[in-house]
Amino acid sequence: MKEFKIASCQMDVVDDKNRNIHHAIELIKRASSNNADIITLPEMFNTPYDNNKFIENAEDEEASPTLDAMCQVAGKEEIYLQCGSIAEVDDDKIYNTAYLISPDGEIIAKHRKMHLFDIDCDTMKFTESDTLSAGDNITTVKTHLGRISLAICYDVRFNQMWTLMNENETDIVLLPGAFNKTTGPLHWETLLRARAIDNQFFVVATSPSQLDNPYYVAWGHSMIVDPWGNILANAKSSEEIIYSDLNPDLITSVREQIPILKNKRDDIYQTKYVKK
Amino acid sequence: MKEFKIASCQMDVVDDKNRNIHHAIELIKRASSNNADIITLPEMFNTPYDNNKFIENAEDEEASPTLDAMCQVAGKEEIYLQCGSIAEVDDDKIYNTAYLISPDGEIIAKHRKMHLFDIDCDTMKFTESDTLSAGDNITTVKTHLGRISLAICYDVRFNQMWTLMNENETDIVLLPGAFNKTTGPLHWETLLRARAIDNQFFVVATSPSQLDNPYYVAWGHSMIVDPWGNILANAKSSEEIIYSDLNPDLITSVREQIPILKNKRDDIYQTKYVKK
Repeated sequence: MKEFKIASCQMDVVDDKNRNIHHAIELIKRASSNNADIITLPEMFNTPYDNNKFIENAEDEEASPTLDAMCQVAGKEEIYLQCGSIAEVDDDKIYNTAYLISPDGEIIAKHRKMHLFDIDCDTMKFTESDTLSAGDNITTVKTHLGRISLAICYDVRFNQMWTLMNENETDIVLLPGAFNKTTGPLHWETLLRARAIDNQFFVVATSPSQLDNPYYVAWGHSMIVDPWGNILANAKSSEEIIYSDLNPDLITSVREQIPILKNKRDDIYQTKYVKK
Repeated sequence: MKEFKIASCQMDVVDDKNRNIHHAIELIKRASSNNADIITLPEMFNTPYDNNKFIENAEDEEASPTLDAMCQVAGKEEIYLQCGSIAEVDDDKIYNTAYLISPDGEIIAKHRKMHLFDIDCDTMKFTESDTLSAGDNITTVKTHLGRISLAICYDVRFNQMWTLMNENETDIVLLPGAFNKTTGPLHWETLLRARAIDNQFFVVATSPSQLDNPYYVAWGHSMIVDPWGNILANAKSSEEIIYSDLNPDLITSVREQIPILKNKRDDIYQTKYVKK
């Protein structure tokens, strides 16, 4: 695999789906004009992060103006597009779903958020399970840039899921995520770096920008982390596209220097995918 | 459980076992006079961190001047003592073993390092497996301060082991550890904080100080981390005793506010202790 350029678009998400879609297309075209091979968007990039708004803006994959627009721009720009996540309706359920689109404009992977964000902190309360259902699958797909896994926001806290992504021979995890002003300063950077260090792969986390709004204020601070846990690029709180050149050879090099994947004790403990 | 005070003794370890033992006793007495209920020492506190020195300084548990001295001071001061680790010889094998001693001077737990430190970085190479054998057990013991687990240094990189310690209902992990000037700045703080955040328990890591010596220069930076991942106290590179009051109620509070232990997907993945 060759070095490639990734762009993570930390974008202003507003309460207007069409405007969000058109703004995302602008950002994608800008990143593409800067020679990005793969471009990422934030969690729930086309809707405010709010249970009622999820219901209002949810789309069926089979007739989705959002996904149609994203497939079209990916094909036109000939880039891989991880178009963040959207509220996906399927039968009577709504999921928080991330898609990966190929340079010929086809959806090649989808990940439904596996861990619903139900927290009740002194300064922050949110209950995704009021509206959303959880996905059940680890999502890894082989591309010509490497093996890409998808995870969404709260999924970052569950290292057993990440161990299984690693066993899928993942090279890079793309994580659309919207931490907040409580959990962001506490945990965002530490968890992203730890997942990279533990698994010795790249982690790219893309957040909405920290826009004041009546719904949910995201933390921002989108981040590209290498297999050493080094931060290659990071945004602040405002809208910004961050870029890095990722060299897959670094994965091999780190794994030779600190051989934790060889040193782990499969004879003592094992993490298994147990879904029936 | 009530709040209690912990002291982590980051100490100068030199090439003189008797001197190290006597110096440890001085530090323990000082921490005890400052009302510590539990006191910790560094990894390999009585010997330089060096394969030949491990052989030279290894002791059989049944006739160990080091452990005799540690049990005596713990009983005299009436404190819990996690006397770092020592090179423990058993039959023809040597282990890197951590002990926990009760306030009545009895050994109540021992942990043999489960993951041997065999790294080969550009700026740092060490092969523990040249002399040491690995332990096979997760170590958790109930005390009147809470449930205490023991892990040693490189064990910190293996989150599956930590998941199992958590399933043992651990309240606090005591980790004697000696990172170095390569891995220390890269990973020490991030990994210690991530283990606390992932498992929502206390983590106390105790290192030798960063003393220039011909063998191995430890990173220092001993650290006490709470279940939020906040650093309650941390040393710099020199010898120092750091203290914190630990309130076990914080564990319950964090677990209620961010209920990851409830939200994890046992129906999708499970980490199992598979040792036969």
